[in-house]
Amino acid sequence: MTSARRRWSEDRWARVAWSRVAEPGTAQVHQWITELGAVEALEALRAGAIGAGTTYAAQLAETDIDAVASVMRRLGIRAVVPDDDEWPGGLDVLDRPPPCLYARGGLAVGPALERSVAVVGARAATEYGTTMAFEIAEGLASRAATVVSGAAYGIDAAAHRGALAAEGTTVAVLACGLDRVYPAGHCGLLARIAETGAVVSEIPIGHAPYRARFLERNRLIATMTLGTVVVEAGLRSGSLNTASHARRYHRHVAAVPGPVTSAVSAGCHELIRDGGTLVTDAAEVLDLMGRMGMDAAPAKRAPDTPDGGLEAQDRLVWSAVPVRQVASATALSVRTGQPVGAVMAALGRLELLGLVRREGDAWLKVPQPRRRAEVVGGS
Amino acid sequence: MTSARRRWSEDRWARVAWSRVAEPGTAQVHQWITELGAVEALEALRAGAIGAGTTYAAQLAETDIDAVASVMRRLGIRAVVPDDDEWPGGLDVLDRPPPCLYARGGLAVGPALERSVAVVGARAATEYGTTMAFEIAEGLASRAATVVSGAAYGIDAAAHRGALAAEGTTVAVLACGLDRVYPAGHCGLLARIAETGAVVSEIPIGHAPYRARFLERNRLIATMTLGTVVVEAGLRSGSLNTASHARRYHRHVAAVPGPVTSAVSAGCHELIRDGGTLVTDAAEVLDLMGRMGMDAAPAKRAPDTPDGGLEAQDRLVWSAVPVRQVASATALSVRTGQPVGAVMAALGRLELLGLVRREGDAWLKVPQPRRRAEVVGGS
Repeated sequence: MTSARRRWSEDRWARVAWSRVAEPGTAQVHQWITELGAVEALEALRAGAIGAGTTYAAQLAETDIDAVASVMRRLGIRAVVPDDDEWPGGLDVLDRPPPCLYARGGLAVGPALERSVAVVGARAATEYGTTMAFEIAEGLASRAATVVSGAAYGIDAAAHRGALAAEGTTVAVLACGLDRVYPAGHCGLLARIAETGAVVSEIPIGHAPYRARFLERNRLIATMTLGTVVVEAGLRSGSLNTASHARRYHRHVAAVPGPVTSAVSAGCHELIRDGGTLVTDAAEVLDLMGRMGMDAAPAKRAPDTPDGGLEAQDRLVWSAVPVRQVASATALSVRTGQPVGAVMAALGRLELLGLVRREGDAWLKVPQPRRRAEVVGGS
Repeated sequence: MTSARRRWSEDRWARVAWSRVAEPGTAQVHQWITELGAVEALEALRAGAIGAGTTYAAQLAETDIDAVASVMRRLGIRAVVPDDDEWPGGLDVLDRPPPCLYARGGLAVGPALERSVAVVGARAATEYGTTMAFEIAEGLASRAATVVSGAAYGIDAAAHRGALAAEGTTVAVLACGLDRVYPAGHCGLLARIAETGAVVSEIPIGHAPYRARFLERNRLIATMTLGTVVVEAGLRSGSLNTASHARRYHRHVAAVPGPVTSAVSAGCHELIRDGGTLVTDAAEVLDLMGRMGMDAAPAKRAPDTPDGGLEAQDRLVWSAVPVRQVASATALSVRTGQPVGAVMAALGRLELLGLVRREGDAWLKVPQPRRRAEVVGGS
């Protein structure tokens, strides 16, 4: 058995191959991997059983996984997959998680992200903005929180530098292969980040950053952290896209205010007006994000009585969903005696209510906040 | 009948006398006036039937109401009382409304305040702050909203000037008698305000501003307007006191953000973190305050079903309270067949829930927002 054949048979290298034959956020690929397994799906693609006539098959034929592995080893780049302890659990909430994550640097990424905050913002930042980003990141890092950002000029770089200044942990998430240095001017910064932290990407080596890849990258930053702090952002800033992903996936969204007269604070003010939390320092960030944690549903969506207001069918399914482990729809169908289709429909409604969440294709309960004392009816 | 005797027999001049024998926010005086009427209570005080041994009687003995009336007439100062069309209805929510209001200027105060916003802030304002105050006030005034402020240096003055620049309406609320110019440097500004707007105070002529009077003045600014916008405020600024009155009396509270590094924006950021609305221009202020109006209960305190969660006693009383008119506790006692004491207790609880509000010593329902579609239980 050659090393290449051995590699193809491993989940890790099958996922590396998948990330090369299709853009990492491709829904169809995620579905195949989920349903068949990465190795089996790749074999099916090679055999023409799935994806016949797509570009995936052609890409696969050109993929020399041994050569890729060799370059990755030489550059100190590793592939991280969902079975690894190092896998960032936050990514599992994504509709279309990447098949694997590439990482460089000494840090075990997943555990470091359990207490992490994204600090992001405009490239065209002001002196005020970079100072705020630096100080907030420094404060977070000195309180043992990992600072995640996108290594861009401006706010991102200031955030990484603040964390490094506190001798804390920082993770840079790129939108290109880790063999590239982007932006080029951050060669030294990225090297310093990798010394004690990590540089990660869903994009395989040899691939350049495109606009679409930046937007996809933002969903990783938003979900692998407890929440996102936007320090400065114009009204069309990419960091608002990150904040929007964070909100969609029930992460905390915070923003730093600035002068109304500054165009790069306008996006922050919009976020705050739209329900984001105004923060002025690291303590306020941790007060917000440390309090609820990544599993908490937003209070405004959580009904007062998790099961009290549900239809009978939904209540039945909800009561069968486990809290600490996960259960598949099939398992829940067996437990409840309901058809799988009905269980799936109930799970969808419960997910919308923030009562359950999906991990891969299995489900678990979202812990609900304590019921508050009733406002009405007291005397 | 001398003019003085005629004056004593009138509600208006009795209230002027009351505002001179005791500080206008005195609870005891308000209770006497409410229970007995201003004229009758004054006669009772003179006869020693109430307030015997207090300083009120001594003050009353020294009060020459004819001389006061003469000075007021000469200075163009009028006394406004609750029966006047010009009385600001917003003041009726106060626990301790002043017996009367003094006014100078051509504007009929009450009607002008029906669509009004307080724009207040620090004396030690920055260039940024005064620019924002001017522009927001200018925008409000040009949209037919009356700008109310305290005529202090800094933010207050900029707010008045912005409204004047738009040829709009502005009202200055002082903490001293209207025969005084405070601050002295604003002699010209106050004269300009009085030309088209009004300068008002609860403090009678001849009385100086004290710290306690500024704090009491703030409750007038907070309640005579639809809401308060704080433009710049340090953490101990008096404008936070105004905002706190506004919140207590269910008025809107908004604040303008600024650089985190500016000490005079710290109070604004605290207000926003504490639930105040971040605003960046006049349109956002009116969007907030125009939408709900001064009668709306804050959404977070209004229960979903106004009557559904109430105790039987409270539900009975609530159902008897009229919507468009007012009813006294006695009338509600008759309508419900419950003792007055029980009705009063129920009204207190209903007021806390934002379901009813007091006007003088009568009550009416607070319109409730439409019930939202149920989040739970739908399919």
